[in-house]
Amino acid sequence: MSSFEELLQQFESRFSRRHFPKEPATLYDPAAYILGIGGKRIRPVLCLMGNELFDTIRPDAYEVATAIELFHNFTLVHDDIMDKAPLRRGKATVHAKYGESSALLAGDVMLAMAYEYINKIDVTYLRKMATLFGKTVMEVSEGQQLDMDFEQRTDVTLEEYIHMITLKTSVLLAASLQMGSILGGASGGNGDLIYQFGKNLGIAFQIQDDYLDAFGDPAKFGKQVGGDIIANKKTFLLLHTLQSASPAHKAELEHLMTENPEDKVERVLAIMRHSRVDEWAKDLKDQYLEKAIAALEEVAVLDARKAPLRKLATFLVQRDY
Amino acid sequence: MSSFEELLQQFESRFSRRHFPKEPATLYDPAAYILGIGGKRIRPVLCLMGNELFDTIRPDAYEVATAIELFHNFTLVHDDIMDKAPLRRGKATVHAKYGESSALLAGDVMLAMAYEYINKIDVTYLRKMATLFGKTVMEVSEGQQLDMDFEQRTDVTLEEYIHMITLKTSVLLAASLQMGSILGGASGGNGDLIYQFGKNLGIAFQIQDDYLDAFGDPAKFGKQVGGDIIANKKTFLLLHTLQSASPAHKAELEHLMTENPEDKVERVLAIMRHSRVDEWAKDLKDQYLEKAIAALEEVAVLDARKAPLRKLATFLVQRDY
Repeated sequence: MSSFEELLQQFESRFSRRHFPKEPATLYDPAAYILGIGGKRIRPVLCLMGNELFDTIRPDAYEVATAIELFHNFTLVHDDIMDKAPLRRGKATVHAKYGESSALLAGDVMLAMAYEYINKIDVTYLRKMATLFGKTVMEVSEGQQLDMDFEQRTDVTLEEYIHMITLKTSVLLAASLQMGSILGGASGGNGDLIYQFGKNLGIAFQIQDDYLDAFGDPAKFGKQVGGDIIANKKTFLLLHTLQSASPAHKAELEHLMTENPEDKVERVLAIMRHSRVDEWAKDLKDQYLEKAIAALEEVAVLDARKAPLRKLATFLVQRDY
Repeated sequence: MSSFEELLQQFESRFSRRHFPKEPATLYDPAAYILGIGGKRIRPVLCLMGNELFDTIRPDAYEVATAIELFHNFTLVHDDIMDKAPLRRGKATVHAKYGESSALLAGDVMLAMAYEYINKIDVTYLRKMATLFGKTVMEVSEGQQLDMDFEQRTDVTLEEYIHMITLKTSVLLAASLQMGSILGGASGGNGDLIYQFGKNLGIAFQIQDDYLDAFGDPAKFGKQVGGDIIANKKTFLLLHTLQSASPAHKAELEHLMTENPEDKVERVLAIMRHSRVDEWAKDLKDQYLEKAIAALEEVAVLDARKAPLRKLATFLVQRDY
């Protein structure tokens, strides 16, 4: 069994090359740019781990992992256009660097190239893989749309938020694992369990992301800390604060969200801390992590094969960057 | 053998239904909207005709035809965002009606849904079909990028323009025919010939499009007549006029393109007519039509099977709308 770090290295050694033709450079350089500025590569490595949970890694797993990473980066490029985000991984976003039209079109060819990689695998697995991949592409888009819709609403419930981030974030982590498991020859039942593991882990992961965006260390966190607060993003933290804060704090919070004073981030954080939202988020995260681990335990393979996934899960939801 | 009109009816009767889930409506209604405002459905019918040129139409041809029409509409939605176009088929464009972010994301799911339809076909044909489809998706994107790049340049040659419109327009017509021919069991050689037919027909089709944009009847043409002239679009017509006009006319043309006076369209058209660009365009169109027909003649099937494609080719490049 390989560790996350070992598989990351194996993936990177294959992935860090040009995936696109040279010309037209105006189309393909923006795509190469976003792939070149790094990223944690969690999803493609999950695909490799999903394969190795059941059997030796097949060469096709690297094709699928590449498709997944291309798709993930496609979503970042288009999401950043929609969110008008200036920075990604501490660097200029694609549209900030190359303009919106080029970013839009570069995203399109990244999605198309992702499907190209899926189409490379052994035809025995092709239909099943393309079906799961396609379903995931649709769901992630739905998640992004819901995320935008929620920005226009003030009555988003925690349940709705979990549904949204399940689509936007978790299903891709879950599908990455399951796509790998297909190549490992997993049964349908085991495939479903590893999907459940990924889905719940993804929710815990997103809670951690929201937590870091508010309470993270600016020196370690790649994005702007407090970005969600500035944008009035309806994260777990804000939704729970609005539900649990005292009437006075709630009124202050709503005032801060409307007026956007210069010290907004500090003041919102103070209210959040006062409402113990940071502790609540940690508890909620642990609940989803436990659900994830419970699904992993049920997967019918030798316990030793699960060790790297168990370790990764704990790491992902406790990271501080 | 079926006529274009018969196959159009058969396609429309299957195609005119909701292709997307109901929710989130904010995501899928924009996609349903563009599909619902019509279109000539040339590409999907070409797919059916490509199948029937060689054999009885297989049910899978309707899946592939649907994928093609979804993909084509995806390109329209994203192109219209990039071109900031207010109208499409005489109606508001998707981004004008629903906003840019929704249009961007609706386009993404249309592309994903196109791949979903490809993934439905008999697995025997799946790899070959997905490969040709994927290659075409990349090429059409390259064509759109070159089109945008050319807007920033003043030295585009006719050869470069033909390369651009081959990618942007022709390869999809060509691939539609060839994808159908794959389902008809065409040999590799016959598949290549039908692709050549489609590619040259596509170039003739685009010349006609450029022609209609300048010289068309506003009452019949769906788009704004003179739109290319207003936007200084480097069409066949403008490139040739710049090459063949007298120095005085060339200077006037360049003045009109920079100054954009109110009577720009009429004055540019007068110069074009004076340089006989309208006649030149008709000749050029006929040359490509002849190349297309020559490729069709070489396809090794009974001559009678080719009649509907021959008729369609002549119609497409002589239409006045």
